[in-house]
Amino acid sequence: MELGQHISQRYDQELEDIRNQVLKMGGLVEKQAENAVKALLDRDAELAEEVASTDYKINKMEVEIDDECTRVIARRQPAASDLRLIIAVIKVITDLERIGDEAEKIGVYSIKLAKKKVSNGMHYDLTHLSKLVLAMLHDSLDAFARLDDEQALKIVGKNEIINKEINSLTRLLITHMMEDTRNIKNALRINWCARSLERIGDHSRNISEYVVFLAKGKDIRHTDIDTIRAEYNLDDED
Amino acid sequence: MELGQHISQRYDQELEDIRNQVLKMGGLVEKQAENAVKALLDRDAELAEEVASTDYKINKMEVEIDDECTRVIARRQPAASDLRLIIAVIKVITDLERIGDEAEKIGVYSIKLAKKKVSNGMHYDLTHLSKLVLAMLHDSLDAFARLDDEQALKIVGKNEIINKEINSLTRLLITHMMEDTRNIKNALRINWCARSLERIGDHSRNISEYVVFLAKGKDIRHTDIDTIRAEYNLDDED
Repeated sequence: MELGQHISQRYDQELEDIRNQVLKMGGLVEKQAENAVKALLDRDAELAEEVASTDYKINKMEVEIDDECTRVIARRQPAASDLRLIIAVIKVITDLERIGDEAEKIGVYSIKLAKKKVSNGMHYDLTHLSKLVLAMLHDSLDAFARLDDEQALKIVGKNEIINKEINSLTRLLITHMMEDTRNIKNALRINWCARSLERIGDHSRNISEYVVFLAKGKDIRHTDIDTIRAEYNLDDED
Repeated sequence: MELGQHISQRYDQELEDIRNQVLKMGGLVEKQAENAVKALLDRDAELAEEVASTDYKINKMEVEIDDECTRVIARRQPAASDLRLIIAVIKVITDLERIGDEAEKIGVYSIKLAKKKVSNGMHYDLTHLSKLVLAMLHDSLDAFARLDDEQALKIVGKNEIINKEINSLTRLLITHMMEDTRNIKNALRINWCARSLERIGDHSRNISEYVVFLAKGKDIRHTDIDTIRAEYNLDDED
């Protein structure tokens, strides 16, 4: 009996360790995304270099957490809810790793962009988009940490707003390129940064979907946002 | 004894079913990618529409296979090598689903591009890039089907070639945009298609890495290609 409890406590501890590792990885990924955006907006080549050369740490964490998850499944043969946690973790860290990749790409482009002047309008749009995406990432990590499916559901709808922002920025970039063809190269770089931000938003949405899956046992991936809203009685403003 | 064998046979069948489902999903994803490329290159709006409206089938398969994997883990408590297969499947189908997303994006852009004239040089570059990427996808699915880690390892190095092609195409696009600013919008669309193709290549590489993981139990993600080459005695040409 005591031994059983002891084993079970150790098992709980293992699951808790995995969750903590994911949170730690999430923290590093968020820091990388923030620094990438800061380097881009402040035209800070040094910080951009730092972002571009830190990604390996995130990659290492992904492999370690994957290993730990496989070990726990093999050793503990987890049942329903624990297994759901582990499967969600395996999925979430894939998204975290890819957010790290996108931050790295923004870092690489920002090294080149640091030497160039960016128009005020573009800077404004890019700042706005970055804020939205970073908030989405932060909130989805937060929802994961607190297993808060209501917050997670709110994030799932945010992609539409991001898409609108991207379209608006793209129109501005096209105007900018048409005005002066010497702007084309840098406008393309900014465009790629915007697309990386868009994908950070997509991955954040994925993370939120896994949080709902964890909390409700319900897979809402690939479900129309209006259907989700109706089912969960969410208002449009959410 | 007989009952044990019976259960074990059923278990083998379940694992085999999962593998077959992945191959089926892979087949559909490959078809989607091929059609997306065909729609883009032949400026076929109808086919582009079809691609853009078929993605839901892939999404459905991902959710079903995920469910089946979770059920098998819970019911069969698989040991080492079986568990490795299931974890690899869970990862592979995420990449397959995202390849489907990229094919869908190419489909959406191709609807708009179908009405426009694309220069011969651009068409040539795009054809070449598409061929490389589709071959990479095909070979990685083939490596998965045959659990052929040697073929998988060859694919892992192919990203470098894709990157070179993308850079060459980007240079051509910039020239094109500079020559006539009315080309900018479509050049941007072609650029996004090229980036989607690049990501299909990235996801194919991921699938190949999981095949190596499956066959060798060795995680080669985030490992420098030269290190992998040295370890596996691969020549540069591989």
